[in-house]
Amino acid sequence: MPHDLHDFFYPRTVALIGATDKTFKPARAILENLAHFDGAVFPVNPKHETLLGHRCYPSVSAIPEPIDLALVALPAPLVEQELERLREKGVKRVILISSGFAEAGEQGLAMQRRIAEITKQYGIRVIGPNALGVYNTDNGLDSFFVSRERVSRPAPGRLSIISQSGAITVILMEALARDNMGIAKAVNYGNRLDIDDADCLDYLADDPRTGAVAMYMESVADGRKFLSAAKALTAKKPLIVWKAGKHELGAAAVATHTATLAGKYGLYQAAFRQAGAVEAYGFDHMIDAAKAVALMDYPCVGERLLVVTNGGGMAVAASDQAQRDGFVMPRVPEEARKKLDAAFPPFFGRNNPIDLTGSGRNEDYYTALKEALPLYDAAIVIVLMGATTVTEEATELIARACHEAKKPVVCCMLQGLGYTQEAMHTLLKLGIPVYPSPERAVRALAALRQATCRKIQAEPRDRV
Amino acid sequence: MPHDLHDFFYPRTVALIGATDKTFKPARAILENLAHFDGAVFPVNPKHETLLGHRCYPSVSAIPEPIDLALVALPAPLVEQELERLREKGVKRVILISSGFAEAGEQGLAMQRRIAEITKQYGIRVIGPNALGVYNTDNGLDSFFVSRERVSRPAPGRLSIISQSGAITVILMEALARDNMGIAKAVNYGNRLDIDDADCLDYLADDPRTGAVAMYMESVADGRKFLSAAKALTAKKPLIVWKAGKHELGAAAVATHTATLAGKYGLYQAAFRQAGAVEAYGFDHMIDAAKAVALMDYPCVGERLLVVTNGGGMAVAASDQAQRDGFVMPRVPEEARKKLDAAFPPFFGRNNPIDLTGSGRNEDYYTALKEALPLYDAAIVIVLMGATTVTEEATELIARACHEAKKPVVCCMLQGLGYTQEAMHTLLKLGIPVYPSPERAVRALAALRQATCRKIQAEPRDRV
Repeated sequence: MPHDLHDFFYPRTVALIGATDKTFKPARAILENLAHFDGAVFPVNPKHETLLGHRCYPSVSAIPEPIDLALVALPAPLVEQELERLREKGVKRVILISSGFAEAGEQGLAMQRRIAEITKQYGIRVIGPNALGVYNTDNGLDSFFVSRERVSRPAPGRLSIISQSGAITVILMEALARDNMGIAKAVNYGNRLDIDDADCLDYLADDPRTGAVAMYMESVADGRKFLSAAKALTAKKPLIVWKAGKHELGAAAVATHTATLAGKYGLYQAAFRQAGAVEAYGFDHMIDAAKAVALMDYPCVGERLLVVTNGGGMAVAASDQAQRDGFVMPRVPEEARKKLDAAFPPFFGRNNPIDLTGSGRNEDYYTALKEALPLYDAAIVIVLMGATTVTEEATELIARACHEAKKPVVCCMLQGLGYTQEAMHTLLKLGIPVYPSPERAVRALAALRQATCRKIQAEPRDRV
Repeated sequence: MPHDLHDFFYPRTVALIGATDKTFKPARAILENLAHFDGAVFPVNPKHETLLGHRCYPSVSAIPEPIDLALVALPAPLVEQELERLREKGVKRVILISSGFAEAGEQGLAMQRRIAEITKQYGIRVIGPNALGVYNTDNGLDSFFVSRERVSRPAPGRLSIISQSGAITVILMEALARDNMGIAKAVNYGNRLDIDDADCLDYLADDPRTGAVAMYMESVADGRKFLSAAKALTAKKPLIVWKAGKHELGAAAVATHTATLAGKYGLYQAAFRQAGAVEAYGFDHMIDAAKAVALMDYPCVGERLLVVTNGGGMAVAASDQAQRDGFVMPRVPEEARKKLDAAFPPFFGRNNPIDLTGSGRNEDYYTALKEALPLYDAAIVIVLMGATTVTEEATELIARACHEAKKPVVCCMLQGLGYTQEAMHTLLKLGIPVYPSPERAVRALAALRQATCRKIQAEPRDRV
């Protein structure tokens, strides 16, 4: 039997209730975005006969086909009576885009409670209200009321996103698209009248397209349910969680934002540990960690870190961060050192960091990694593309060395002129996570190491 | 009398010893970059009669004019005898680009010591060796051996850079150029055979083009001299210092990189505090803090922070970071709140954060700031440009509110499609620092606050 969330991500037919062609209206953006959906789209609005080239229906009951998923973008007070029509039509999955419910005060909360009762009674499963809904690169489904002219969408990839905040969902998508990082699925569950954080984890745990999950939460719907779903997921794939509203000020902001209780941060931290999730510190770290676990095929099984660079200062910064993140940096062992001595000019540093200086060439990166990486648990490779002796082809040699050693390599490369962006995109395509500062590269590797540890811990538990 | 460093930054004539047109050679890049210099350029190389359109001289003595500054890009073993010719020519300022000295081991150190003795004896002041030298947007002087095709250069601005690492200098320049942030001057002093960190501080303290200084250091040449120069500078303008090689691993990397002792980090921290400098935690924070103090005209005199947003989750993240950085976020006072009630629809949050939701329009940002900002010490303003109701013109209204209240405003805006980049550049032009994550925005504001406190402390001391 398919999971209850399956039809939210893989409907054959979608109705958009409250469809419009008025610019700046959320439902207009949704209708435009549904043009990318593989299935059939049925706009509903009694005032129109056609909308943006679609035939438009006066009500959901007038649609000649069964509807797998209804997107409701009506003003909050009109939602309740619409549910009656959806029930009559036999619709079992609804995304309530509409806001103006629990997040808008007492009256909204009362409406939300009534709708929860009615939908439960009707056997209708609901994402929302106050939600963007879902984005699925597998079939082009996109219920987000954000125009693609304003916010680009990521291509298909292995990372999936679960977010309590619509804004965070959107900017995560945009940030990943900008970095040419693909995603599998994204879901913003909003006020979670029905479908909650744990349901989403539960579904994505078994989604074959999802290789890793990044999650933003301000509060948890049901602590035990979350813990159990997260544990089940991390036994199969990495989970990065960013809990916002950690401290007093943040918690106060949560109360305004999602009208939920942020709860004691310490309890969340304990739950994340127990669930085998990797905690992200904030926005940048969330994206950085997600990139690392979604892209890198090789686990980071220990703390022995190699640093290779063509800029000494950047390696110093990486070393400072490595210490903060619990790595050690033993010197290059004698045997490998001799090989480096034979290959390198005398002024290259060949301890650890291996410093190729501003004269380091593409092939020197390969030599350094080939000889030394097998003796370490992971490498941070810093490439300053401004040096006259390196070219974009360094990226391929670095990836080759990584894949030969089957050890994780994380790169640091500054985002500068267009060719540096291209080099970064090449690295990502070759499965090498890349970051614009040494500290961020090291912290992302630390997240990968944490995810690896959790996986190693999870495996014997499964075997018992 | 002009400062000893004046002729390094404002020579009328520059000789490039070891000039070449061979691609990938450092001296080729320097010669190309000198095309942007306002003064006269004299390449020196006995093997050429012309180089890239310049007449080329067989030796420095053949140049018909006095030389204010010589850039020496010869192999290390040839430098000593070149100094003799420079002395004969009466050259008093030399930038030793050449590497292969103290950073390259015992032999190099011995050469460096000899050169130090000789130049002292000859009355020649030296930047380097193993240095990029100087970049001055005031006259286009650019001694960096990095091609502009590979690394872009910032336009004129108020920030100056002092760096012990060449690589860090270059990537700071590139990062600032990418963000459309201007700079005044940059100097990489390398092995500081003569001119050191403190000399650079001393010069920039009185440079009228320099409004703020960002400094990267791994070790200090002379602790007392540094402290005194830094104190003098911070009495006039903000100083951001990033000390790398903080911990054991970083310190080990410093020993390889600049062949200096990183020293006890605690002592550095104490010195920075005493000097009134703001310490940066790493690469991103260095740039972020430098942007804030260089751009923002208004001091941050207290801890009362206002947050305005159109994405609730981003405000939660900002609030968490605000707490970490010692800010408080009192609710919007009654009087102002009433005005917001009159202007805003009921579903806008009007405590603190002020949450304009995904429906917030440009003018709502202005209203929020106009009514509330005068009652706070500073504001973080988050604009998610993907919302259908905001446009690029929000930037001008935000800047107007900032300049009317004369209170610091720091923005957070995600770098996405081209129009978001343009909006960020507009904010910078209007004097509003802008950052791609809420945490970075708050940390940059915290640096501005710290710089303000130091300035307030510095002022009464001056009056005594």
